[in-house]
Parts: sequence; structure tokens; C-alpha cells
Amino acid sequence: MTPLCQRRYNDPDLMKMKLKIWMEQDGSVAFAEGRRMLLEAVDRLGSLNAAAKELGMSYRAAWGKIRATEEALGLKLLDVTTGGKGGGGAKLTHDARDLVSSYNTFIKKMSSIAEKEFNNIFNQK
Amino acid sequence: MTPLCQRRYNDPDLMKMKLKIWMEQDGSVAFAEGRRMLLEAVDRLGSLNAAAKELGMSYRAAWGKIRATEEALGLKLLDVTTGGKGGGGAKLTHDARDLVSSYNTFIKKMSSIAEKEFNNIFNQK
Repeated sequence: MTPLCQRRYNDPDLMKMKLKIWMEQDGSVAFAEGRRMLLEAVDRLGSLNAAAKELGMSYRAAWGKIRATEEALGLKLLDVTTGGKGGGGAKLTHDARDLVSSYNTFIKKMSSIAEKEFNNIFNQK
Repeated sequence: MTPLCQRRYNDPDLMKMKLKIWMEQDGSVAFAEGRRMLLEAVDRLGSLNAAAKELGMSYRAAWGKIRATEEALGLKLLDVTTGGKGGGGAKLTHDARDLVSSYNTFIKKMSSIAEKEFNNIFNQK
């Protein structure tokens, strides 16, 4: 194959390869970037309410997403404490940490492979 | 890392890993799945108008997408003949064939790698 417009493909300011990966179950999102951000925000802030606020979502929508992933993967993601000083909070379960960590590893690896393969295929001499 | 809900991840009917890859330039799509389909339809039907119709797009929108990719990649994609018997037609240039072929090779390779990496990371024993 001949190189396709070598100059432009080789200039990262001009051409970018974009990659989106998510998990689906029965046509619905089971886990994706937004939920990864939500879980990481809960981990950092110790509260689903605060995490939802930070991401500009309603508490109801955030909780719905967590529940949908819990159901799709058959995992419990949050340990929730209600009431008490500060109005309760939420912590990630061990499974939630594993999920975020596996997802991050997967995305990072795929991005790196995609970049390499893209250059191999489109910019080969 | 512990396996995450092995039973479900391993059942392709339940959990699917979805992958979307596209090329962007200055925040706009330079080439993606829709344009690949458009070029392949032009190749098959010998006409941009017929290709646009098949994909449920207006001729104007289809032509705009072709032009946008031509500009982004610095390539001519279509050889267009106007008038004559049958009202003219369109054929893919050599560069357009190379682009579609490289894109298909890239997507196929990435899908296969993604599937393998997904299972390695999420389903490892």
C-alpha cells in the first residue's frame, strides 16, 4: 500500500486517531468512560451526591447509572452509609476498584496499540 | 487482578465490547465508518447520488462529507463524470481505494486485538 498523505498523517496537530470503547449488554451501556469518571469521583469525594454534582448530573441519574452497571455485571459497586454526621457517604467496593483498574488498563493499552497500528497501516513507507 | 464476574464476561450473548474508531482533524471528523460506507456504496453503484440515496442521505450531505474528507486528508476521492447517458457517475480514485482498504485493515485488526485484550484483562484467571 502506498503512504496516504504522509505529511498530514504524521503531524499530530493535524490528524488525530480517536478511539471509543465501551461495554454493552442487550444493547444498553454496561460500563463506559462516564461511569469510570463517576466511580473515580465517588472514590475521591466519598459521596455519590458530591460526585454527581461535580460531573453535572442529578443524584438520581448517577444512581441509575451505578445500578445499571451493577445489574449488568452482577457486581456491587458502592458501599453506602446513610445519615450520621455529614449525611452519609459512599465508598467503592473491592469489585468497583477492580473494574475501574481493569478498564483503565484496557483503555490505556488499546490507545497505545491503536496509535501504533494506525501509523503502521497509514504511514508505512 | 481477580476475574470480574467471569460467567457474564465470558458469555458473548450477555456482554459485548464495543469499539468506535475515527479520524479527526481540528475537532472535525476526517474519516469514519459512515464515510467508509459511502465510498463503498459509490464503488458498488457508480454514482454518488445513488450511494447517498441508499444510505438515506441527501446528495448535498454526501457530497459535503466527501469534500470534508478530501480537504482533511489532502486527497481527491472521486472521479466524477457529468451528463451523458445515465446522467453521469462517480468512481473511486486510487487514493480513495487505498484509504478504504487501509481503514478496513485498521478496524479489523483493532477489533481483533480489542477482543483479545478485553478477555486477557477482564477474564484472566
